[in-house]
Amino acid sequence: MGHPGRTDRPDRDGARSLRDRGVGAGGHQPGPDRDEGAHGRGGRRPGRLARVPGSGGPVHQPRDHHRGPGGDHPRHRVPQGCPGRAVGGRRHGRGPLRVRRLRGVGSLESPPRPAERVVDVVPTLQALRPRDVSGRVAVVIDVLRATSTLVTALAAGAREVRPAATPREARVRYDRLAAARGGTEGLLLGGERMGLRIEGFDLGNSPLEYTPERVSGKTIFFTTTNGTRTLRRAAGTRTGGGGARRVLVAAFLNATAVAKEVLSAEGDVVLCCAGTRGGFSLEDILLAGFIAAHLERNAPFVFRDLARAAAALYRSMAGEDGRDLARAVAAADHARHLTALGFGDDIVLCATLDTTDIVPEYRRGRVVVP
Amino acid sequence: MGHPGRTDRPDRDGARSLRDRGVGAGGHQPGPDRDEGAHGRGGRRPGRLARVPGSGGPVHQPRDHHRGPGGDHPRHRVPQGCPGRAVGGRRHGRGPLRVRRLRGVGSLESPPRPAERVVDVVPTLQALRPRDVSGRVAVVIDVLRATSTLVTALAAGAREVRPAATPREARVRYDRLAAARGGTEGLLLGGERMGLRIEGFDLGNSPLEYTPERVSGKTIFFTTTNGTRTLRRAAGTRTGGGGARRVLVAAFLNATAVAKEVLSAEGDVVLCCAGTRGGFSLEDILLAGFIAAHLERNAPFVFRDLARAAAALYRSMAGEDGRDLARAVAAADHARHLTALGFGDDIVLCATLDTTDIVPEYRRGRVVVP
Repeated sequence: MGHPGRTDRPDRDGARSLRDRGVGAGGHQPGPDRDEGAHGRGGRRPGRLARVPGSGGPVHQPRDHHRGPGGDHPRHRVPQGCPGRAVGGRRHGRGPLRVRRLRGVGSLESPPRPAERVVDVVPTLQALRPRDVSGRVAVVIDVLRATSTLVTALAAGAREVRPAATPREARVRYDRLAAARGGTEGLLLGGERMGLRIEGFDLGNSPLEYTPERVSGKTIFFTTTNGTRTLRRAAGTRTGGGGARRVLVAAFLNATAVAKEVLSAEGDVVLCCAGTRGGFSLEDILLAGFIAAHLERNAPFVFRDLARAAAALYRSMAGEDGRDLARAVAAADHARHLTALGFGDDIVLCATLDTTDIVPEYRRGRVVVP
Repeated sequence: MGHPGRTDRPDRDGARSLRDRGVGAGGHQPGPDRDEGAHGRGGRRPGRLARVPGSGGPVHQPRDHHRGPGGDHPRHRVPQGCPGRAVGGRRHGRGPLRVRRLRGVGSLESPPRPAERVVDVVPTLQALRPRDVSGRVAVVIDVLRATSTLVTALAAGAREVRPAATPREARVRYDRLAAARGGTEGLLLGGERMGLRIEGFDLGNSPLEYTPERVSGKTIFFTTTNGTRTLRRAAGTRTGGGGARRVLVAAFLNATAVAKEVLSAEGDVVLCCAGTRGGFSLEDILLAGFIAAHLERNAPFVFRDLARAAAALYRSMAGEDGRDLARAVAAADHARHLTALGFGDDIVLCATLDTTDIVPEYRRGRVVVP
């Protein structure tokens, strides 16, 4: 690409003429030289905000990460402290307190931290970032079917469930514990890939398999495509610490119990939906909405967009009393996929509210009922 | 970690004893040797489905990408074609047609392609994958404020808008065109970073600035944090082709016109929300919901989860007639952030339905009214 030519540019609302007259921050002469010097002396870095004489409001002074063609051309260096121009003069008449608040970048990046507890929802495993869960109470949701199966297994008396990222990891840990104990007594392998039981595993991912007869008193090594990974990511295992302060396991089966536990806990709340194949899952958002709506009714919280949307969605699709919940869940993409695989009965079970009041928690690699 | 010891494992529903008797697929002797051989001779790869004698249903035979400790131990190689065990016997009594359909992996990964047009919604720029838009009609949505500003500018008579990824790119392209033309007559620079006009730019990202007096007949180089990137990603510029067949630009200001254009177009539809700072934006999902609800009323479409949810959300939060739209948008996180920056009037404008019937389209790097 050619070197950009220098062209005459018309005066823009006087900004150019002010600059030419040397009216900058503190009266210093702005220009490329001063810009370089400011960098070298630890002055303001580009990309920060400046409020300057002759300006009707703050402007953003860019610090380009992606330098395009002509990136070193002096024409494209933005002098620091040169006069800006107001956008519609919206700032006129604001007091000095307001001006001080606008000086920092942080105060513009997010609204000031409210005193109330925040409720947020993350729609998929893939969208879950460490900062979404850090220090918060995380609720992991994978209605179809991982968390429904976990809740069912523990309600049926399973001793604990140890989530594994892969079938191989589950098998290796199973074998290791069996070797240490001198037998496989009391151990089970469970989980799915592509919705189906894994070759050689005792159990699949259908909650209907996790009966008291099969699982009571057992330690279950368990792996699913999204659910177990969401547990780990929420806990910070994969991201090297900085995870949630607590990780609760939610299904419709224990939804009210989880909501009550969240209410009685401290700190901000993030409802982490596993999603399906990287995308949004209606059934997960509906459960997030059920919990959010419960919190909304019982205490003052600050709802982030998706938390507010999920609560409205639950009321709209399932009804305030959950009357239409089974129908709403059955219409979800993944429910129809599982029904086609022959797991229609699972959908009915997983869309049932409050069959148990246990609140499983993920702690040090194990899901247990505390 | 120690090498896993070999342990006695109790017979699981007869699978072990069948295997020991050599009853595998086609009567071949299963085992690690056969497994290795199958790989070498181009046989079935692990990770596919098998329906085998002695099995009550398909099981998933894993192909682990993440080999854990003991990954080469023969204990952990899964022989191909060895007998599986049914999950609850759900497949009994199904005909051979059903069995054939289950043989391929593809038929399990997604439901069979329906004849109707599909409507999907992608919640954020970050979640937008090439396969979400490939060959589809894409509608790009960034209500606060990029697409509202684009629609306003073109409705005010701007000749065209050329989106740029960065302020620097916008400036370089502006300068290059000015040099070629011998002047900046008819050219403008517009856009924002952190919600504010960029230093040295003619216009910010407030639609109120884009009046006929300012922009009529002009070519505008335009950059915003999320909106312009979403346009490009939908068009496939960044992803090396495979983009949408058409990329339409939607705001509430032209919402019904966009919905009608989508109705009269051909092919699947994806509503691409820009989102805010990597997260879900309520105002974008509401517009996606408005368009989805319009499509739902006027033709048979297949709605993916988030499209169905967005339509329900729009009806729930804005009302069937949009009566509560302004209030719903004003309550969104990003709206409150912009209001704190002094852009409250923008929120009111951006939440206004159908002020124009233009449908801007992004073609070869330019947003124009065709």
